[in-house]
This record gives sequence, C-alpha cells and structure tokens, in this order.
Amino acid sequence: MRSANPTKLKEPIAEVGGLLAVGLDPAAAEPLQRQLYNQLRDAVLSGRLPARFRLPPTRVLAADLGVSRNTVLAAIEQLTAEGYIEGRVGAGTYVATLSGDVPAAAPPAATVTPARHRMSRRAAAVAAIDRPTTRPRKPFGIGIPDLDGFPFEVWSRLMAKHWRHPQPDLMTARDPAGYLPLRRAIAAYLNAFRATRTTPDQVIVTAGAQAGLDLAVRVMLEPGEPVWIEDPGYAGFRAVLAAADATAVPVPVDAEGLSVEAGKRLAPEARLAFVSPSHQFPLGVTMSLGRRLELIDWAAQADAFILEDDYDSEYRYEGRPLAALQGLDGGGRVIYVGSFSKVMFPALRIGYLVVPADLVDPFLRVRAAIDDHPSIIAQPALADFIDGGQFAAHIRRSRKRYATRKGVLEAAFARHLPGMLALRPIQAGLHAVADILIPGLSDTAIVEAALARGIVLTPLSSYGITRRAQGILLGFAGVDEKAIMRTVKLLAEVIAGMRR
Amino acid sequence: MRSANPTKLKEPIAEVGGLLAVGLDPAAAEPLQRQLYNQLRDAVLSGRLPARFRLPPTRVLAADLGVSRNTVLAAIEQLTAEGYIEGRVGAGTYVATLSGDVPAAAPPAATVTPARHRMSRRAAAVAAIDRPTTRPRKPFGIGIPDLDGFPFEVWSRLMAKHWRHPQPDLMTARDPAGYLPLRRAIAAYLNAFRATRTTPDQVIVTAGAQAGLDLAVRVMLEPGEPVWIEDPGYAGFRAVLAAADATAVPVPVDAEGLSVEAGKRLAPEARLAFVSPSHQFPLGVTMSLGRRLELIDWAAQADAFILEDDYDSEYRYEGRPLAALQGLDGGGRVIYVGSFSKVMFPALRIGYLVVPADLVDPFLRVRAAIDDHPSIIAQPALADFIDGGQFAAHIRRSRKRYATRKGVLEAAFARHLPGMLALRPIQAGLHAVADILIPGLSDTAIVEAALARGIVLTPLSSYGITRRAQGILLGFAGVDEKAIMRTVKLLAEVIAGMRR
Repeated sequence: MRSANPTKLKEPIAEVGGLLAVGLDPAAAEPLQRQLYNQLRDAVLSGRLPARFRLPPTRVLAADLGVSRNTVLAAIEQLTAEGYIEGRVGAGTYVATLSGDVPAAAPPAATVTPARHRMSRRAAAVAAIDRPTTRPRKPFGIGIPDLDGFPFEVWSRLMAKHWRHPQPDLMTARDPAGYLPLRRAIAAYLNAFRATRTTPDQVIVTAGAQAGLDLAVRVMLEPGEPVWIEDPGYAGFRAVLAAADATAVPVPVDAEGLSVEAGKRLAPEARLAFVSPSHQFPLGVTMSLGRRLELIDWAAQADAFILEDDYDSEYRYEGRPLAALQGLDGGGRVIYVGSFSKVMFPALRIGYLVVPADLVDPFLRVRAAIDDHPSIIAQPALADFIDGGQFAAHIRRSRKRYATRKGVLEAAFARHLPGMLALRPIQAGLHAVADILIPGLSDTAIVEAALARGIVLTPLSSYGITRRAQGILLGFAGVDEKAIMRTVKLLAEVIAGMRR
Repeated sequence: MRSANPTKLKEPIAEVGGLLAVGLDPAAAEPLQRQLYNQLRDAVLSGRLPARFRLPPTRVLAADLGVSRNTVLAAIEQLTAEGYIEGRVGAGTYVATLSGDVPAAAPPAATVTPARHRMSRRAAAVAAIDRPTTRPRKPFGIGIPDLDGFPFEVWSRLMAKHWRHPQPDLMTARDPAGYLPLRRAIAAYLNAFRATRTTPDQVIVTAGAQAGLDLAVRVMLEPGEPVWIEDPGYAGFRAVLAAADATAVPVPVDAEGLSVEAGKRLAPEARLAFVSPSHQFPLGVTMSLGRRLELIDWAAQADAFILEDDYDSEYRYEGRPLAALQGLDGGGRVIYVGSFSKVMFPALRIGYLVVPADLVDPFLRVRAAIDDHPSIIAQPALADFIDGGQFAAHIRRSRKRYATRKGVLEAAFARHLPGMLALRPIQAGLHAVADILIPGLSDTAIVEAALARGIVLTPLSSYGITRRAQGILLGFAGVDEKAIMRTVKLLAEVIAGMRR
C-alpha cells in the first residue's frame, strides 16, 4: 500500500494521490495496472480530477506509486484510448473535457445502493406466486429420480464420442427445433411407448419442460386470455402464465382428473387447458377415458387447445400406461409436453414439445426469438442413448426399482403409521400422497415438525388454489429401501409426538 | 399382411377384420401388439365397433390375424385398462359405452389436415420480422469464430471429468442463476477484461445471450412500452421485443454509436435502450466515451435502463478494448449481456446477464418461471476452462489468428476489389463491413450474385429499419487465409461481371 508522502504535497502527483485518496495494493487479485486505471477513471468521472488537469509524467507517477513505469503507461494508454485523458504520452497528458453530463462518481459495486428499481407487472405477478421448493436428494423430496442407478459411464462415453473430435456441423448447429436425430428418437419413443402420433417435424426440443410450457403459452395466448389449470396443480405453470400475462382459471380435479364440466362453467371462453392426465400432479389420479374424450370434444367445440403435461408417465405400477391425449386426438388440438428430467436426471434440462403440424412454424419462429435453439452439447449423446436402447433399459430397470421402493413405503406406512397417515394407492410416478388421519392436524404442521428432524415432506395444501386440500407428498423413487424404512419410522415418532 | 378371408365372413372375428378394414404388418417398425391396439381403438372411437359389440375370444382373434395369443392379450388388456373394452379376458369382452361425445375416428397423423390454427398476435408479430439467416462455415458467413482452433480435446476432458462420476449435487443442481463456480469465473473475467463491476451474485447464466435478452425484456417492460434500438441493428432483438409485446423505436447510429439526441427526440419516454457499444452490430463502430456518458445520464434522468450487448468485444485489433458501460455506470442502470458463442462455439448456447443488485431477485423469479435454471451439463467444464486459464489462452490465440486473417482480407480487397468494394476500418470483432463503390449496384444484388458462386455474404441493408444503408458484411474470423484470398478473388470476378 502506498502511504501519503507529505514531502511531495506540492507536486502534481501528490495532488493526484490526494484526489484519489486511495492507493494501489500489490497483494490484491486485481492487477496494479487495472487498479490504477479504475482509480484514475473514477477520479475523472467524479470530477475529483477536473477537466484540463495536467497529469504528472509517467515516470514520476510510477516512482511515487512504487510501481513500474510500464504499469503506469498501460493505465494511461487505456484511459487515453477511452477518451478520459487527452494528449500523448511523453508530451503531456490532460484530463479530457467530457461531453454529456458526467455522472456521479461510480463507487465500487459493493457500495451501490440505488433506490429499489421498478419491475414489470408480469415480473411482480411471477414473484407473487408461491412455488413450493423441493429439497433434492433428501427423503422424501419430490421430483427426484434414482440418480445412483443412472449409467453415467455410458452417458459420459457417448458425450465424449461426439465432443472429442466433433463433427464440424455440430459446432454451429442452429436448428430451432433441435437436433434432428434426437427429434427422430423422441418421435419413435413416444409413438411406441405413449401411443402418440408424432412425426419428427412436430417435435421441438426445449430447455426442459418449463421452457416448453413458456413457449406454448406465448405462441397460443393473447395477454389476459383465460386458461384452465388443475386445482390443485403444478404451481410452475401458474408462474408461466403470469410471466406471459395470461389468466389462470383454477378448475377442480376429482378422481377422474380435471372436471371438464366445472371448467365449462367457470370459463367457457378459455383458449387452453393445462392437464396432467397420465398422473395428475400432485394428486396422482389418472384421467379416465371418458374425461379424456370429453376434454378433446370441448377443445374442438370451443376452438381451444390442450396442453398435455406427461411429466412422469414412464413409471406406472398398476395397469398399463394410458395412451396420451395426443394420440387420442384427431383434430390437432393437443400440444404435448415431455421431459427427460425424471427419466434421465433433473439438471440435464432437456424437454420437448409435440405440436400440431400447422403450428410448427409459429412455434419455431417464437422459439428462435426467445432462445435461438437448444444447446447442442447433450443432444447427440441423448439421441444415441435412446437409439441404442440404453434409455429404454434404464427406464425398465428404474421401474422395477421404484416398484420395490413403493412396496417398502407401503409396508413401512402400514407398520409405523396406522391411525396417523394413510397412503393413497400409488398407480404411477415418483411420489406418493398420504392422507392425514388425525383430526385437526394440518399438513403444514406435519411438514414443519418433520423438517426439524431432517425429513423433507411437501404439503399437498401448497398446491391448492381455491381449496387447500390436506395431505402429504412423499417422493420415494430416489430413496433407497433402508432409508425409506428408517425415515418412515422416524416420521411416525414425529407425528406421535404431535398427537400427545 | 393379413388378407381378407371370405370363408370366415360370418364369424365375429371376420366382422372385426371387416370393420377394421386394415391388417397387421409384421414387417412394420411398430410392434404387432401396438398395431392391433391402435386399430381396435380407432375402430371403437370411430363407432365402427359399436358399444356392446362382443369381441371374439382372443385365441380366435390370434389365429385369424396370424399372430400369437400373447400379442392379442396384450392389446386387449391395454384397451380394457383404458376403458375402451369391458369384461374380463376369458369371460367375454365387449366394446364399452363411452361417456362424453366420441370424437370422429382419429386418422393417422399424416392425414390430419385441420384448418389453419390461429396463433397469438405476438407470435404473428415475431413471424413477421425478417431475420437475416447466416450460413455457417462458408466464406464469409457472419458470427462464426474459428472452430478448427478450439481445443476440443481439453474441453472433452473437462466434460468427462465432471460427468464420468458426477458429484451427486450436480445432477439435481437447480440454482436459477446458474452454477456458482461458473458465475464466479464469469465475474472475475468480466472485471479483469471488461472493467465491469460484477459480483457473482449479479451474474445469471442463460441459454445463450438471446435467452438473456428475452428475460431482461420481460422483467423490465410492460406490454407496449417503447425501447430504443439501434438502426441498423440486431434483428434478433426486435424479435425478442415482439415476443414480449414491447415496442421497438429505431434510433439512428452514427460514427459514435447510437444517437442519444435522436433517441430523446424520437421516444423520450423509452424505458430501455438496447446498444452494442463495444462493437456496434452490424456497423462495427465503437461508442465514444462522450456518447456513453450521455446515454448513462439519460437513463438516470429518465428512470430507464440500458441493455448492453457485448457480443464480441474480446476481439479488438486497434487500441485497447473500451471498458463496458456496466463499469462506467454508478447508478445500477446497466444490464449487461454476454455470450460464449463467439469465444467458445455457437452451438454451446451459454450466455449470461449481469444485472443491478436490486434486480437480481425479480430476474431470478421470472427466470425460474420461464426455464427453471440453465442445464448443468456444460457449466462445470466451462468454469474449469475459465479458471484454468485455457479460456484466456484460447482468446489470445484466436485474436492473433483473426488479426492475421483481417490483414489478409484487407490485402486481398486492396488487390482484387479496387473501385468495386472498400473495407471500412476493422477495429474489432469477427466481421468486416465493405462499402460498394459502383454506383447503382445494390448490396442485395451483389449478395445474390455471389451466392450463385458459393460465396456467402450478408447485405447491410437487411439490418436497416427506417433507412436501408448499403454495404456488405463479411465474416472473416472462421475462414482460413487461403480461402480468404481465393474467395475475394472469386468475388472480384463476380462483381466485375455485374459491372459490365
């Protein structure tokens, strides 16, 4: 650090030092040249170094600051290049007369405390939506598949195959629909396993299902238009609607799924219905065939569209998976949203839309405007993973493992929690719903007490909109058998303690 | 293929076959079981198999169709699970009475030709914007760095390091701001090389710069609010504005950058100004210090914000890079947008925003609504690449290579194109701008004639909004020296041919 040097107070350099009121720190991460540049620039901008102020010769400045002349030269050259200083090194340099109003001194970022900036109404609306947060990888956080079982060796090898010596075209790939071989693989997978009617041209690869929902809403809806959403339902979709200025109309869900009857009564003019028919989130019910046909019929009559969220339908433990709405619909009114988060791993962030053929073009144009195209980094490996059969094999293995864990969870509940919590039948997916059998005990109270013992539960009421039905959500797929047993036992202690 | 069997016409199975009017194809990619399922389902939905129609025993169906009984059982079980068929296998099965209106038969996707669907006004507005397309990896397509020089071996090794045996936390990482070590690396890089004042908390990793622009516009602007944009300027930003219902106000660019004076006159109430001060796209001019201060001053007085697009400032050939507006501004009014597309490779799709500290929270909430969080796949490797110094080394190497190519381009123009095209000084970036010296010859005519000979040029006029200034854009960074010389020579022949 440079200390004040009283013997040079009359020299210009001392005045510079005095005006700067700070020195250079050789121990700092920031290079000395950058430190000097920043401090001189701030002094000019703040007016502490006034216009036409003559700077001392660089060798004097260097000697005074205790740094090399090159350091000073570099800083002065930079300031000259940027117009803060005029003149030529060696022939005298002056602080420039800056056009425009010179802003107040720019203090270091840490001290910037401007007035609270306004944000847009849509940003405020999004900020106001309470999205339950899941706590990954602790029993029983929701939405987490079994990550220990994922074949990362295979995945890493496929990634390396494409990126050690990449195909030149890969590096500049910019198809807004995504990498064609991946779209082909997705279409074949969906047609075979989900009974959709999908061509590769209808598939749009997105940055996760969430980005797909955002894209669909922006292409399809005018600001303010009403949308049926499931109540209780996925809060993340309400955030999407808020971010696009659309209006959410909560429609109750019963044992057969979203009530089309209620939807027609509540908002007959809705232009879109958002449903999770395979495995309703969060209740877990499967939409009946009758309800599916009723919904498709409504869409056709109302000139509306259905946004089908098929977020975890790969995992079904009872019966066979029902065919997707997309495959049932003959009129091109279903926009299908899928994700690899649950069948690969969540941080991958690759999802996809299947859109009616005549909507592909507007979707792709808006997509290009929003985020150009999906990252190519993982797409070729993912296409290989699907085409090579590892994807289907991983799903089969996972389904068996999850079925086992489901059984362990049911057994542990039966043993430890009778009279306290009762599991609803688990037909599909990665999470279970439990009803609270103790009168007067709320789901949020249980969640809070459990959290104090390290157990992560999610209150069903947090997904309710007009009604806050009570219940507890438990993600079981990513939790090994011993942890399930141990944690359910601990949970029973927690709840027993609350009953007393 | 099953052919019609007239001897069994009276049997129920023949009736089914007749109603279906199609058979099973063992050679098709679709499994036989799925083919049968689809055909029976379509027959039920279309009413060709009426309610209460009794299906023949499965062994009869199997024999008639020439498939195994298991195939038939699987299809029937699926149809039963989904509610199309009632009864129990072995005890007689019937077509169910479906509730809801049964839709018309769902024809195969290829034959679906519904009426043209409506799309939202914003989708239509986006679709109406003419975005010049670049043709990657051909001389002289723009926006393409030198991809042969990228150290893919190093990159692949870093990727494998993180993904062969991934840290458990990586797989479920869901920080909406992005991977913290990458944000730290970006902040350090920007502070050292771009003279910004950035803390890691202010950095938001996005799916490319385009997604960052979209996010900024949605957080900051109400529908309809005016935004200053550069004229000529980046068409992709106009698409972003259209997708967010905002209003673009074209402001002329002169030799010092965007004219703040003109902006104030054209739209004093603008809430945002979009500028590329380091290297204006497409003209290549650098915004002067005076103009920078004037712009910052306007933002402070008008309660407006500046969106600073720093898309290729790493490559400067004359003088030193000017400090970013973000570092000049003391009032927290600059939102900085950066990209790795030009310094890594375009298909990576990783960009970032640096937002004022008090806007971080609303940005992250809207970000979470739009696309949750960025993919984790490439972020750890990119953080290592920057921290390990390979990033800076790659930039240094590339800058030298591009400076050489710039020199070759200038020499080739001087030799082959005098009196036809004249390059403007190339201070920075990956592309050059050439003026047309032949009166009456338009840039689009030259571009078209060149394309017929395999040369990719971009007309400057395609970026103009209110005025269509003439000129030719040439990307030179990704073209090797020999190709530059050869292509310029060929271009001279093309243009000489047009003069005659």
